[in-house]
This record gives sequence, structure tokens and C-alpha cells, in this order.
Amino acid sequence: MNLPRIAVDAMGGDEGVRVMIEGAALARRRHDRFKFLLVGDEARIKAALENHPGMSGASEILHCEDVVGGEEKPSKALRRAKTTSMGLAVDAVKQGLAGAAVSAGNTGALMAMSKLALRTMPGLDRPALAALLPTLTDDDVVMLDLGANSEGNSRNLVQFAIMGAAYSRIVSGRERPRVRLLNIGTEETKGTEDIQDAANRLRAETGLAMDFEGFVEADKINRGECDVVVCDGFSGNIALKAIEGAARFVTDLLKQAFASSIRSKVGFLVSRPATELLRHHLDPNNHNGAVFLGLNGVVVKSHGSANAKGVANAVEVAARLLEDDITNRIAHDLAQIGDLGGRASGATAGLAAK
Amino acid sequence: MNLPRIAVDAMGGDEGVRVMIEGAALARRRHDRFKFLLVGDEARIKAALENHPGMSGASEILHCEDVVGGEEKPSKALRRAKTTSMGLAVDAVKQGLAGAAVSAGNTGALMAMSKLALRTMPGLDRPALAALLPTLTDDDVVMLDLGANSEGNSRNLVQFAIMGAAYSRIVSGRERPRVRLLNIGTEETKGTEDIQDAANRLRAETGLAMDFEGFVEADKINRGECDVVVCDGFSGNIALKAIEGAARFVTDLLKQAFASSIRSKVGFLVSRPATELLRHHLDPNNHNGAVFLGLNGVVVKSHGSANAKGVANAVEVAARLLEDDITNRIAHDLAQIGDLGGRASGATAGLAAK
Repeated sequence: MNLPRIAVDAMGGDEGVRVMIEGAALARRRHDRFKFLLVGDEARIKAALENHPGMSGASEILHCEDVVGGEEKPSKALRRAKTTSMGLAVDAVKQGLAGAAVSAGNTGALMAMSKLALRTMPGLDRPALAALLPTLTDDDVVMLDLGANSEGNSRNLVQFAIMGAAYSRIVSGRERPRVRLLNIGTEETKGTEDIQDAANRLRAETGLAMDFEGFVEADKINRGECDVVVCDGFSGNIALKAIEGAARFVTDLLKQAFASSIRSKVGFLVSRPATELLRHHLDPNNHNGAVFLGLNGVVVKSHGSANAKGVANAVEVAARLLEDDITNRIAHDLAQIGDLGGRASGATAGLAAK
Repeated sequence: MNLPRIAVDAMGGDEGVRVMIEGAALARRRHDRFKFLLVGDEARIKAALENHPGMSGASEILHCEDVVGGEEKPSKALRRAKTTSMGLAVDAVKQGLAGAAVSAGNTGALMAMSKLALRTMPGLDRPALAALLPTLTDDDVVMLDLGANSEGNSRNLVQFAIMGAAYSRIVSGRERPRVRLLNIGTEETKGTEDIQDAANRLRAETGLAMDFEGFVEADKINRGECDVVVCDGFSGNIALKAIEGAARFVTDLLKQAFASSIRSKVGFLVSRPATELLRHHLDPNNHNGAVFLGLNGVVVKSHGSANAKGVANAVEVAARLLEDDITNRIAHDLAQIGDLGGRASGATAGLAAK
């Protein structure tokens, strides 16, 4: 298959042009059919390309100087969609100049720009932000929504489940991913009305390409016992950040502890392969590529502080979503359910990043 | 001060009578003014007391044979409030036979029984479940609500903040604890309407004995930068369990990693003091004593799998809440705000553990 090229926002993220280009080049060394539209300051991109001679034939530069700030309000950034590297990368997907966009910039701005330019898929109420989290097994778990919406009613949750399953099929290779709703208990009576209603609906739908297995509590997300964890954007953001914070907390404690005596320092040196393995497993660069699902086009958010390997992973995620035609897969699954997934009343949802 | 005695549900929890009695005895070895009402099977309690001769003069036994099951539905357990060790321990507080109750049993049942017997404080809409979490500093952080309610409107959140600050004053000794609302970002525009409304109200109230410092994201809960984290019961339960799960995930990875080579095993042995320190810091027994705040009486929930040290900590928490007269402190603070904390519309809250 002739893979459409990937638009890379070369200016976004904490690490700047050099790392974005290095990441794209690394992805291309793994898959030489990758082609790029590199969006950003031409002089700086050309300078970065000098270290990667293989990239010149595979990439075109779309020059622009304006950049979305990391702390900039999405509403403000949105006004500069036509002049910023992020906005132009997304617009390239809309114009058909690229098949997918990858950016390491401001998540809220990227979501806002993507929604405005690409629009939500027909038949879907709201897009969602999905990410891959590490588990105790070799497989990552897909979790969504992670904050594209600040709430989510039962109909949103059912649609998130369908999108998450479609994403999981691509990354895990499972034809019927195991899907669970995040809840504060596993009994059927637990949680809000919206969650219970979504669970009833997912239990009743037998035509969906997933195994819906009820609820999962937040302490089991990383156990590797399910492939997709579905939640509203507020809870998902809380859970994701709580996990990140706790993992950092434990590793910080470990560092304090290892630094507290000479004997421990010696132990640390001897056991370095073990702690390296831990670092490898927890390193977000190995699980990079949060995805906006439910838009008419593929947009991947690379972690703001991702290194070249992380950027390469995000580019590969974009390529796999294109190859597997995620948008049509989701459309197909949505069509399996009659009224698009249950009651739309209850909580109202809004773009979290106002 | 003559400390009222503490009713101990001797039958609750995974570890049974022996550990509950051992925990009470350990607390009494630290503070010999502690007196107990031990509720449960008399023969088994007496057998357990034989190992702790100092306890006989300090404790009375209230015999009963019925026990609330760990997985039992609170609504079902509630019907046996007058015959179970848990129900009788709580009832002893109501009857004035004890100043506080400690149980390691079923959290939902304990909450339901406590609400029914002790009732919510006048002027307060809903009680909350608060716990102590470890931080990178020497101080624990108070977090609430952790699931006593499955949602929380802005008025509930303001009241939770007041209760959390009162609890933190007792455990941290700070006269003006630093209070933050859990949110998905720190900008003023982030989050739900209820959270923004609660923040506006807490910012405007200057007569409260706390420093309200805005929002905290879930990855900063354990940094030790605030003393109280306030959230609705659903988010709190998600955050707490996500933290527990991630901490276990990292330590499990660490174990896998250390077990993966002989060199690492040697390193592990040499650095054992470091990993012991980690274990000590993460051990829930060192932070034991979740508290139901906002009732006409003190009820402390000991962790179901707590060891004797954990139970002793829970008993000490109960004693400190009694000594510092937490109920009157909360009543005093509630009286500082005119209309009890803002709009009560929006989400409706219900007992999470139905």
C-alpha cells in the first residue's frame, strides 16, 4: 500500500525542531516507505535535516514561523490556526496534503484545531483522546477519554468504547479487545447513572467487535487484564495523572532511598540492569502516541517531552492508524448500533481545555 | 483529659480478632490512658486478650456473634445493625457507651450504619470519607471524599474542604492547612461548573481556618505541596485507587526486574535497607485510619488488611479526633460561612455503596 505522507509539526513540544526531525528520521529508518510534510521554520528544519541525509528525498517542507505556546489558551491559539506550524500540519490533513498529523505541542490547542479543521465523524457526538499505558504484560492498555471532554454521558461512553476497541484492535492485534468501564466498584449497582446505563447498553449489544467485561477499578488499570479502559474525560484525566504521579513518587522515593547510604549506593550499582528495566518499562517514550479518535482524519499527540524514539513511536502510531483505516473502522462499528449508544441526557460535555 | 473509651469492632477485617486486639493493645502500650469496648465473640476476644495482660483492666467486652461480610451489600448489612459487631460498635457511640468506633470491616456497610445511627451533623449536607496519603515530605496529605458519595456538587465540595481542613489541623498541627481542589488543570477555567463554583466560593471566604490555594492535578497529590485535596467521591475513589494501583505496579515491576538476573539479586540484597525504606513509606499500615467526617460521632475505618501496627494507628487517629473534638471544630467552621457553601443544584449525590 502506498502510505500517505505524514505531516509533522516540527516546532511543537519542549524539545524543538531537532528532536522532531530526528524522530521522523528514526521512524523512516525502520519503515522506508514513510514520507513527510515537515511544517515549521524552513531554515531550522533544513539545518536539522543535514544530519539525516536519507530524509531529504522523503520530505517536503511547509514553511511557517509562528508557533503555539505550551501554556497558550486553546481559544487564543485557535485564532492563529492558519499561521502556526500546528494549525498548518492539521490543515494539511484536511486539504489532503497529508494523511495524518503528528504534533508534540499544546494538547488543548491541538484538540481544538483538529476538531475545527477535521470535524467530528458523522454519527458520533464527541471525539476522545486515547493513550496507551504500560501493563504488567507485554501489551499496552488503551485508555480513553483522557480529557478531550470534561464530562461524558452514557451515550458518549458507549461511543468511546467503540472507538477504543477499534484502536486496540490495531495496536494489540486482538479481533475482540476486552473492554471495561472505569468505575468505583465492580458490582452492577456501583457508580453513576450514566456509567450503569452505558454498561447495560454495552452488555446488550452483541454485534460489536469487542468483549465487554463490565467494570474495572482504577487500581487494576495496569494489571493487563483488559485491553480498553473507558471513562469520561474528567475521570480519565484524574486517573492518568494519578498513575503518572504515583509512578514518579515511587521512583523518587527509590532514588532517595538508594542515596541514603553507601551500602545502598553499591546495591544500586550492582542492580542497575534491574532499575534500567524499570525505567524502560515506565518510560513514556515507549508508549508514546496519544490519539484523537472520532475525527475525519488522524491526529497523533506526541508527548511534549518525548525524545526522538518517542517521536518515532508517535509517527508509527499515525502510520498504523492510516494503514488500518481507523476512521472507517469506527464508522463501521458505530453503524452496528441503532441509536448510536443510548441516552444523551444527563451530564453535558464540553471541551475541557477552554 | 479523661479520654472516652473507644469501641473496637473486634470481628471486622481480613485478619480477625487476634490482630484487632493486638492492635488495641499496641495502642495502649503507647498511651496507657486508652480504654476499650471490645465488640464481638466473647470467647475469642478473651482468648486473644490472654496474650495482653495489660488490656484486661482497660477493656470491657460486648458479646455478639454476628459479623458483617466483607462483600456483603451495605443495604443488607444495615438490617443487622443491632446484631453485628460492626453495628454494635457504632451504636455504642450513639448510646454514649464509647466516644469513637474503629472497624476494619466492609467500608460501605460501616458508612451506612454510621450514617443511620449517628446522623449527619446539623448544617451539613453530606458526610465524607477522608484518608491520609503519603507524600515526599514527612507530612501526610488528607484527601476527601473517597467514595462516601458517588458525586458532589459545589456546596458539598466547600463543606468537604472545611471538614478536610479540620482533620488536617489535627494530624499536621498546621493552624491554616493548605487546601486545593482536585481538577484536570490548574487554570481557573478548567473543570466542571461545580468545581469552579466551589473554588470561587472558597477564594471569597476569608474567615475560614485554611489557605485555599486553587486547584491541584492528580499527579501532584503526593508531592507534599498541599495538606488537603478536596474532590467528589467518584473522582476521589478513582484517584486513590489509581495511586494504589500504580504504586503496586511499580513495585511489582521492580520485583520482576530484581528477580531477572543473579547480578540484580545480589544488588537487591546489598540495597535491602533502601527497599525496606521504600516499603515502610508505601506501607498503608503507616497511614492507616480513614475517617468518616461530618457525623455526630467519630468513626474510623481501619484498612481491611491492616496488621496490628495499622490497627494501633487507627485507634490513635480515633483518640486524636476525640481529644481535639473534631465534631465541634467542624461545626464551628461551618458556622463561618453564611449559606453553608454555595449552590446545591447540579449533580445529585447518593451513597456510593448501594
